[in-house]
Amino acid sequence: MSPQFRTARREDVPVIVRLINEDPITAARPSSGEPDYYAAFDAVDADPRNELIVVELDGEVVGTMQITYIPGLSRRGGERAQVEAVRVAPPYRNRGIGREMMRWAIDRARRRGCALVQLTSDKARTDAHRFYASLGFTASHEGFKLIL
Amino acid sequence: MSPQFRTARREDVPVIVRLINEDPITAARPSSGEPDYYAAFDAVDADPRNELIVVELDGEVVGTMQITYIPGLSRRGGERAQVEAVRVAPPYRNRGIGREMMRWAIDRARRRGCALVQLTSDKARTDAHRFYASLGFTASHEGFKLIL
Repeated sequence: MSPQFRTARREDVPVIVRLINEDPITAARPSSGEPDYYAAFDAVDADPRNELIVVELDGEVVGTMQITYIPGLSRRGGERAQVEAVRVAPPYRNRGIGREMMRWAIDRARRRGCALVQLTSDKARTDAHRFYASLGFTASHEGFKLIL
Repeated sequence: MSPQFRTARREDVPVIVRLINEDPITAARPSSGEPDYYAAFDAVDADPRNELIVVELDGEVVGTMQITYIPGLSRRGGERAQVEAVRVAPPYRNRGIGREMMRWAIDRARRRGCALVQLTSDKARTDAHRFYASLGFTASHEGFKLIL
């Protein structure tokens, strides 16, 4: 059975949040305040330059990622497709689902006419770095974060 | 005279493009096709989650940056403020303008309630990396790019 891709719906919020938060690197990050995941979902859902995607296998959501299309004057005026929050449920890892997800995202960005696809990956995720390199990505940049 | 910040206008496009392209690392990147900077400007200008900023000194545009506010379910549903295409005109470098720009961007993100500020910087820009670290940024991530 091959993975099916679709835009996330409001009822997918709990499973997406679980996929994001069960990741140990995410869980180790400092956090404060009460999260409002439904408000965040509504903001993404209403924005034509943001797509929250879920991946289903046999009707079950097993992966998620978000793609943001960023217009701008650098890169010769071309849009950037940025991929954030890529997660595959632990029992479904190492089956090539992540690879299908990234290929799907790259293909979608290409069809849209984007100039490049970009993402950042925590330096602790060394396996992920080899994975992204195998897809043709270059680790050409340092990714800086400042938590507010 | 302290730098003045404002949203870019359509007539600023030529100076912004010059600031972006006179950078040697940008100039060395492969490129193809005819750029349409005005279409890119219009897309940014019409998007409430994108701000193209110019910095003026004595009425002259001496710097530019773009801020994108990315909603999402990671980071506990908090928006990310992403800074792209930060440039200061060569004759105005090493005067603290870049620092004022980044502090302005961080302050703007904080007031908006963003969870974090993020940016990527080409690995060749080692001076910039020290600069971002001095502002409190952590180089916690690898920045991957795939040119389409």
